Amino acid sequence: MTTSGHTMADAATMRRALELAMRGPARGVNPRVGCVIVSPHGDVLAEGWHRGAGTAHAEVDALGKLEPGAAAGATAVVTLEPCNHTGRTGPCAVALIDAGIGRVVYAVADPGDHSAGGAERLRDAGVEVAGGVLADEVEAVLGDWLFAARHRRPHVTVKWAAGLDGRAAASDGSSRWITGPAARADVHRRRAAADAIAVGTGTVLADDPALTAREPGGEFFDAQPVPVVFGRRPVPADAAISRHPHAPVFVEGADLAADLHDLQRRGIRSLFVEGGPTLASAFLAAGLVDELLVYVAPVLLGGPRLAVGDLGIDTIADARRFDFAAVERLGDDLLVVAHPRPTEGN
Amino acid sequence: MTTSGHTMADAATMRRALELAMRGPARGVNPRVGCVIVSPHGDVLAEGWHRGAGTAHAEVDALGKLEPGAAAGATAVVTLEPCNHTGRTGPCAVALIDAGIGRVVYAVADPGDHSAGGAERLRDAGVEVAGGVLADEVEAVLGDWLFAARHRRPHVTVKWAAGLDGRAAASDGSSRWITGPAARADVHRRRAAADAIAVGTGTVLADDPALTAREPGGEFFDAQPVPVVFGRRPVPADAAISRHPHAPVFVEGADLAADLHDLQRRGIRSLFVEGGPTLASAFLAAGLVDELLVYVAPVLLGGPRLAVGDLGIDTIADARRFDFAAVERLGDDLLVVAHPRPTEGN
Ligand SMILES: NC(=O)c1ccc[n+]([C@@H]2O[C@H](COP(=O)([O-])OP(=O)(O)OC[C@H]3O[C@@H](n4cnc5c(N)ncnc54)[C@H](OP(=O)(O)O)[C@@H]3O)[C@@H](O)[C@H]2O)c1
Ligand SMILES: NC(=O)c1ccc[n+]([C@@H]2O[C@H](COP(=O)([O-])OP(=O)(O)OC[C@H]3O[C@@H](n4cnc5c(N)ncnc54)[C@H](OP(=O)(O)O)[C@@H]3O)[C@@H](O)[C@H]2O)c1
Repeated sequence: MTTSGHTMADAATMRRALELAMRGPARGVNPRVGCVIVSPHGDVLAEGWHRGAGTAHAEVDALGKLEPGAAAGATAVVTLEPCNHTGRTGPCAVALIDAGIGRVVYAVADPGDHSAGGAERLRDAGVEVAGGVLADEVEAVLGDWLFAARHRRPHVTVKWAAGLDGRAAASDGSSRWITGPAARADVHRRRAAADAIAVGTGTVLADDPALTAREPGGEFFDAQPVPVVFGRRPVPADAAISRHPHAPVFVEGADLAADLHDLQRRGIRSLFVEGGPTLASAFLAAGLVDELLVYVAPVLLGGPRLAVGDLGIDTIADARRFDFAAVERLGDDLLVVAHPRPTEGN
Repeated sequence: MTTSGHTMADAATMRRALELAMRGPARGVNPRVGCVIVSPHGDVLAEGWHRGAGTAHAEVDALGKLEPGAAAGATAVVTLEPCNHTGRTGPCAVALIDAGIGRVVYAVADPGDHSAGGAERLRDAGVEVAGGVLADEVEAVLGDWLFAARHRRPHVTVKWAAGLDGRAAASDGSSRWITGPAARADVHRRRAAADAIAVGTGTVLADDPALTAREPGGEFFDAQPVPVVFGRRPVPADAAISRHPHAPVFVEGADLAADLHDLQRRGIRSLFVEGGPTLASAFLAAGLVDELLVYVAPVLLGGPRLAVGDLGIDTIADARRFDFAAVERLGDDLLVVAHPRPTEGN
């Protein structure tokens, strides 16, 4: 990726391409992409954007608005490196070459396994290419899609609620409500922001949770996470999740990394793991956690009901290390946000 | 206690009495007390303060500086209600009456079992009495002495260090160092501020701790807490605590409330309970904790080594409830300070 050979005008056009990208759907398998085609004199010839899986890519959408030959010698400014992949639409790199585009400016390199290599293909065909223009802004908009595409799995947040002594429930299993209304409202807001929410069969069978994202008054948020149940045990047909706006996804959980890859291929970019302790501990032990949210209630419970179980750690040198990213007061409770320490290669 | 019938001049004189009080020793069985004797015209006739157990009380110290009869009709301004108790020095209330004092102004009522009632005795003898003058300032200076006198036990702080999952050590028992240098320095500062530091025999036998308060470079703080070991098991004669600047105190721990009362009678006003888990849990289960200090390291350990063990709590309604008083970042770690919720009657 190079940022050489681009102009102030390219950046301004990229900002417009980003606006166009934002018209696309925020969720799903494909990213939001926008494209602006500019004449050698700097006139905008056409604009395009991607409307989601199965529809034209942004470059093809823009080119389609021009008469044949009209793009000859023009510059295509596109938020994501043009793809090199024959899917439902054919490689955009080839479409640009065929249209006679003379120069391509993009923001972020295509992280895809099959789709990357577009810039090289364009250069090989004699097209001038500049990458990295407005990359930070575009990365921020691509957000979890980019994370998921780069890591071949959703961004994983593991959440639990516990007392100061790490207990998630009292000895008899009671835990309603260990944390207060402000903490619960925060959880629901974060559920709404995630593509999917995961629990183990243990939690489904014990609590029959709805796994919806609700306002404190009970109304549903517009965006609802897809419920994902990990485990082999059957879930009753009349479980509350059967009434969820999205059909639940069931995965076995025998190979969490493979399951996450499957979820990513279904378009799930971010997964909010709500537990219980067994599933949360399995994600932690596997090193598949990108963010921890620990809601700490000002209580002590003692007893055997731990928020985190065994992690297969024998000695302090093998501790899983994090960094505290934020600590917030939520009513009487605390929210501690932590991220895996990068040097640990988590 | 009444604040009626005192003047601006009384408050100014009380401030002077408080200065005198501060000349007394900060630790020990007795409080710091200061006294100023003022003529009916407002002239200072004498000043006195208490120098510690076995020496004159502040009022007697001041009166002793006057010729017989010189205090007739004068006002005695004293930081603590004059005692009504015949100890090594005889009741101060009687000494004031005998000296012909016409008016007594004090800040804080005497919380003692045997010593209270001085104000009443003075009034019964026809002395005018005003209490509560500058009470907040004086309470702040009396600090833990007042707490200990009121509760008949030291102020108890329970401290532990743990990962985000409530584990104090890895499965093999290793825990050095779960928290970083800033957290450890904070612990040592707080040790130095406490009259005594408590551990169970388990910690002494496992770790052989020095229980001294040290600067990060290893130098001792001027003030050192008295080491107190709870438990029945014998401690080796050459344990590190045998080289502590203070002789260790050994208590059985079978009745923690009674043990604490004994410690208070030895002049220990504040106790810093450093663990281990068994002793900390026993204090928590007994409801004998006034402050919790939880040093939370950004690690997960899993496994069986919990910072807090069983507390005899079966159901969530019986949770021990606290309020978060402060949350501080200490290097990579967090310090969470919590106090028992007052409505729980802890
Ligand atoms: N305090 C909190 O934040 C919180 C949050 C959620 C739940 N909870 C409580 O947690 C309790 C349920 O605990 P739980 O631990 O039994 O529930 P869980 O973690 O929801 O479910 C455990 C099950 O997950 C399945 N699973 C799938 N993949 C797995 C893997 N890789 N490793 C291990 N297990 C995997 C297994 O089911 P199969 O045997 O079917 O394969 C396992 O038995 C409930 O009482 C609930 O109230 C507390
Ligand atoms: N992470 C931390 O903050 C921290 C702090 C300190 C220690 N530790 C670790 O904790 C481990 C030792 O744990 P531990 O729990 O065995 O040690 P402990 O709590 O120091 O000692 C336990 C002993 O305290 C005595 N005791 C006295 N009164 C008691 C009462 N009312 N209730 C219960 N016990 C009473 C009993 O001794 P008798 O049987 O002799 O009567 C009991 O066996 C060490 O490995 C140490 O490194 C960690």
